[in-house]
Amino acid sequence: MKKHISIIGGSGYSGAELIKILLRHPEVEVTTVFAHSSAGKRVDELYPQFRSRTNLTYEEYAPGKVVNDDLVFIALPSGEAMNYIPALIDAGKRVIDLGGDFRLQDTALYTKYYKHAHSAAKYLSKAVYGLPEWNREQIQSAQLIANPGCYVTSALLPLLPLVKEGLIESTGIVISSLSGASGAGRSSSVELSFTETNENVKAYKVGVHQHTPEIESVLQSFGGAAVAVTFVPHLIPITRGIYSSLFVTPKGNVTNETIDAALKKYYLNAPFIRLLNNAVPEIKHVQQTNYCDIGWKMYERNGQIILHSVIDNLVKGAAGQAVQNMNLMFGFDETTAL
Amino acid sequence: MKKHISIIGGSGYSGAELIKILLRHPEVEVTTVFAHSSAGKRVDELYPQFRSRTNLTYEEYAPGKVVNDDLVFIALPSGEAMNYIPALIDAGKRVIDLGGDFRLQDTALYTKYYKHAHSAAKYLSKAVYGLPEWNREQIQSAQLIANPGCYVTSALLPLLPLVKEGLIESTGIVISSLSGASGAGRSSSVELSFTETNENVKAYKVGVHQHTPEIESVLQSFGGAAVAVTFVPHLIPITRGIYSSLFVTPKGNVTNETIDAALKKYYLNAPFIRLLNNAVPEIKHVQQTNYCDIGWKMYERNGQIILHSVIDNLVKGAAGQAVQNMNLMFGFDETTAL
Amino acid sequence: MKKHISIIGGSGYSGAELIKILLRHPEVEVTTVFAHSSAGKRVDELYPQFRSRTNLTYEEYAPGKVVNDDLVFIALPSGEAMNYIPALIDAGKRVIDLGGDFRLQDTALYTKYYKHAHSAAKYLSKAVYGLPEWNREQIQSAQLIANPGCYVTSALLPLLPLVKEGLIESTGIVISSLSGASGAGRSSSVELSFTETNENVKAYKVGVHQHTPEIESVLQSFGGAAVAVTFVPHLIPITRGIYSSLFVTPKGNVTNETIDAALKKYYLNAPFIRLLNNAVPEIKHVQQTNYCDIGWKMYERNGQIILHSVIDNLVKGAAGQAVQNMNLMFGFDETTAL
Amino acid sequence: MKKHISIIGGSGYSGAELIKILLRHPEVEVTTVFAHSSAGKRVDELYPQFRSRTNLTYEEYAPGKVVNDDLVFIALPSGEAMNYIPALIDAGKRVIDLGGDFRLQDTALYTKYYKHAHSAAKYLSKAVYGLPEWNREQIQSAQLIANPGCYVTSALLPLLPLVKEGLIESTGIVISSLSGASGAGRSSSVELSFTETNENVKAYKVGVHQHTPEIESVLQSFGGAAVAVTFVPHLIPITRGIYSSLFVTPKGNVTNETIDAALKKYYLNAPFIRLLNNAVPEIKHVQQTNYCDIGWKMYERNGQIILHSVIDNLVKGAAGQAVQNMNLMFGFDETTAL
Repeated sequence: MKKHISIIGGSGYSGAELIKILLRHPEVEVTTVFAHSSAGKRVDELYPQFRSRTNLTYEEYAPGKVVNDDLVFIALPSGEAMNYIPALIDAGKRVIDLGGDFRLQDTALYTKYYKHAHSAAKYLSKAVYGLPEWNREQIQSAQLIANPGCYVTSALLPLLPLVKEGLIESTGIVISSLSGASGAGRSSSVELSFTETNENVKAYKVGVHQHTPEIESVLQSFGGAAVAVTFVPHLIPITRGIYSSLFVTPKGNVTNETIDAALKKYYLNAPFIRLLNNAVPEIKHVQQTNYCDIGWKMYERNGQIILHSVIDNLVKGAAGQAVQNMNLMFGFDETTAL
Repeated sequence: MKKHISIIGGSGYSGAELIKILLRHPEVEVTTVFAHSSAGKRVDELYPQFRSRTNLTYEEYAPGKVVNDDLVFIALPSGEAMNYIPALIDAGKRVIDLGGDFRLQDTALYTKYYKHAHSAAKYLSKAVYGLPEWNREQIQSAQLIANPGCYVTSALLPLLPLVKEGLIESTGIVISSLSGASGAGRSSSVELSFTETNENVKAYKVGVHQHTPEIESVLQSFGGAAVAVTFVPHLIPITRGIYSSLFVTPKGNVTNETIDAALKKYYLNAPFIRLLNNAVPEIKHVQQTNYCDIGWKMYERNGQIILHSVIDNLVKGAAGQAVQNMNLMFGFDETTAL
Repeated sequence: MKKHISIIGGSGYSGAELIKILLRHPEVEVTTVFAHSSAGKRVDELYPQFRSRTNLTYEEYAPGKVVNDDLVFIALPSGEAMNYIPALIDAGKRVIDLGGDFRLQDTALYTKYYKHAHSAAKYLSKAVYGLPEWNREQIQSAQLIANPGCYVTSALLPLLPLVKEGLIESTGIVISSLSGASGAGRSSSVELSFTETNENVKAYKVGVHQHTPEIESVLQSFGGAAVAVTFVPHLIPITRGIYSSLFVTPKGNVTNETIDAALKKYYLNAPFIRLLNNAVPEIKHVQQTNYCDIGWKMYERNGQIILHSVIDNLVKGAAGQAVQNMNLMFGFDETTAL
Repeated sequence: MKKHISIIGGSGYSGAELIKILLRHPEVEVTTVFAHSSAGKRVDELYPQFRSRTNLTYEEYAPGKVVNDDLVFIALPSGEAMNYIPALIDAGKRVIDLGGDFRLQDTALYTKYYKHAHSAAKYLSKAVYGLPEWNREQIQSAQLIANPGCYVTSALLPLLPLVKEGLIESTGIVISSLSGASGAGRSSSVELSFTETNENVKAYKVGVHQHTPEIESVLQSFGGAAVAVTFVPHLIPITRGIYSSLFVTPKGNVTNETIDAALKKYYLNAPFIRLLNNAVPEIKHVQQTNYCDIGWKMYERNGQIILHSVIDNLVKGAAGQAVQNMNLMFGFDETTAL
């Protein structure tokens, strides 16, 4: 029998991508999609690409509506998920949260970067960080998954093997990331209008982006080292995709071969990681997919390693990774529908 | 001595383009720029491209602030200009209105297409339609200029010679126009966000766009014939520019030579019209300029003439044409600063 | 047992899209992909999006290599397919040709528009026009399918019901189409470079595009009426998609309801046609899918019907429709893998 | 009397931008434009935006054709300018070379990065590096100007004050730059086609780009310190513009104020440098202009300074800077026509 799934916050881009992936998933059925301001509208009214594919209608959330569901996805802005999750957890539901509310264990850090207090701190210990390549076993039995941030995913996947194997210095790490506009969500603002974004580039939240502490805390918890990163996101005129260029300082004897071995050690059997060695990844090669492509190069002249990684921000950076986590939680093949 | 100019509604894209052109105009000085919601902000705070080029600050409008100005531009949304123009006209000011309030002499038509009543109907008779290639003399002595709509300019310039010379049938005219997103103004809406507009095309206001009656009424007043047009605008993912493809039915003996002669008759000395004959215009050849390029071709197999015209919607379609009108009003060379 | 499939001309965009669709098709296996100039290269070298998805390598074509295949797709430029097809047909192979060589039954017309002679005229009678919504039965048993042109598909699907039901005049039909750059193929030319295409629009092959006679001849053969169309394609800065705006003259008593009934009569059970009635289609709603969305509106003021249709040029306009045809030929569900 | 100017290599994008700027320059007249493969074509045939603006026709170069010119611009691919410059210098002509042939004094470095030998090494000593903000006096009297590279300009302008004032460490400097497609020139290649470039990002020439040694050698010659930089250029889907994000390590007591003071010391009176302090620059604010906007921020958490700079690659990165140099050489106002 198919697993029953509902989605709280299904009207944004991550929610729509989630619906798209789940509709082609042979083992699950989406029972309900909740969206406060769009309640009463058909999903294909907001997203006409779904015409003739689904009859789902957005509904106002009520706890009674999810009692028969096996899993609840939450794709709400940070600060809102924590209003739903405690009751769901207490009711025994399994939950995957695509937002940032349960990614940082340190509530002081959360408040500093998210600019509001955390109202469900005692549930943080339930949260399992949903990076399948690094946390597969914990994910399988988790009740609550904190699905990683999009930039974070693109940064952690190349960095974690190097940190874990002790190949790089813990300071001076630079992560310069480029993101398509869909990463900012389905929002109405002059800044994100076509006219302002097209033929333009701008860095934003330089040094204060909320993904910075997430990158650092996961590098510590999974990589085993306290590191500092300089993370600068840039908005570029593409719809989907993240391109991260990373610059790190290798320790003493590190060579291209050492790096190669470290990456292969962790990713040889990871179905969604493609190692390019000295080749350079391109966003278009991963668009609409759950892949993360990683290339790298020793740059001895200046004592650095240069790494590049690419993902689709709505797939491996959000909904795709969430479904990958769901597949693990239900014991499905990890790649189903992806 | 330089002419003193002020702008009411200087915070939108047309207003900003106007400022840009006027700042390089050797014969005028912009004294004041009014913008209600941005009052108190520097122009270069809203439009950082003006940093180090101007110290102008947006101000709240007050009639006393324009008493020493020789001309007032109004670049407000339709429906707002008519609140300012009566008093300005009564005070003897010369005014160029970039919006739609004084383009239609028929207030019933205005109400039908603009969805609100006209509150300054008795000033309509003062309004001179600001299409310099067809109304040069009236413009020179006008007190109030109704600057043409962007789509309208791209449609009228190729059509007027054919209508005026009686070369085409008065029905079945098709105008299929493509516009860049800046034509929708500096606005915040999901529909105009980069993510929704990029890699997309959509027709809009099919058959009900307010430029339809403007095209028809000017074809009648300047072209001398009552004609009906089917006008369909499309939003395409470019920032600036309009591409109009026009399909008309030639009368009996019309040939390529007849068309050529008609266009040359009206435009041979028009500094901003470039006739391409059978060549096809491209938007990029007119971007950031005040040119309108026109190409055409008899298509005898289906009994039609196919015409194409291109303009930059913010220049020849708005601010550039407004400055061209100002140049005529002040007796400057028509091309100054353009 | 899976059907064995090979592709001649697998290095262009249609070929790559075909590979992508066939790789997810549960009933077929791609045995060989031929590409002359890329012979010896892995498919994922040319198209790195296929890394880890396939080990296929481009090969030089030889007749012996397809003897065990159940069907051969040909995705070559027009003029090249006719060098392969006679021998394949003689050998009893089933063939789907994505190019233009077998779409026009009239070789004089072919020569006029394609600018070279037809070398396999006697095989034209074998060709079945692969528009599934209008030719389902013939396709099922066909040996040779001429897969429709991309623009043609977008024009025929809205027009055929109106022509077939005798609802519109046979002259004055205007088809103004906008295409993304992938429609021009994987080619190296200054004209198709990013710098020349971005922020630009241009009409091209005005009145002489080779899809004009294809539209007219199919309207006659399936629609039953000799009609003339004015077809103007435009290149716009998007990667994938075609937007067609069509303008036709309704006969006497035609109303919105008549049109609605005609379209429903032919498409109610067509899985890939979505009828929007008075709504306006958008390219992004069909991108990466095999759908054709159609909207329409009576425009009585000017005695016209305005129709809009959208497709993805590489899917419903090429590889998707080819697979739809293959599904019919093999008796699979028509929508498999689409 | 106007100065007479000719251009060798006027058919590329830099050449066309040069023509555009020089046509509006009140003190000069373009006498001849040379272009080998386009010889005989009108300039407005290759670049229709010049229709009605100029009658210039591309010519085949011959030494006799420039004898009456006061200055010759060369906008040829690197490796070609050195075939023309020796004779021009010997003939006493003043020359501005927009290419890379005379930017590196070290021919071994030239050969390593440009992949061919230098055939005019003895003329290198004549070359003055044309970065006006750092070399104004030498430029005024120069006979031969090596106009800086586009990426180089965007990197040097923010870095030079910090290096010169000894504020940063000489290692670990990271320059991550994004460039629009026009930087690759007017060329026909699949890689630069719209379909391949749109919705994509890719790093290229990682660590081996020829602008790396140019950055390092000018930092040494003008900045007075031997430094190593890691430079990674990325191709992004915009037409014009370069966005450079720079990461450097401050020495001991450096604060935001120290940086601010250093930048103001060198640029307070530089007409084309706009210092934004902690604000973030955007490409669109400098497009079509000769400005370089620079923003910066101390990032103490990770011991770094983050700087951002933006230019238009065809203006301040090529033709605009070349005209700025010409203005200095002729004693015109530095900003004329810019």
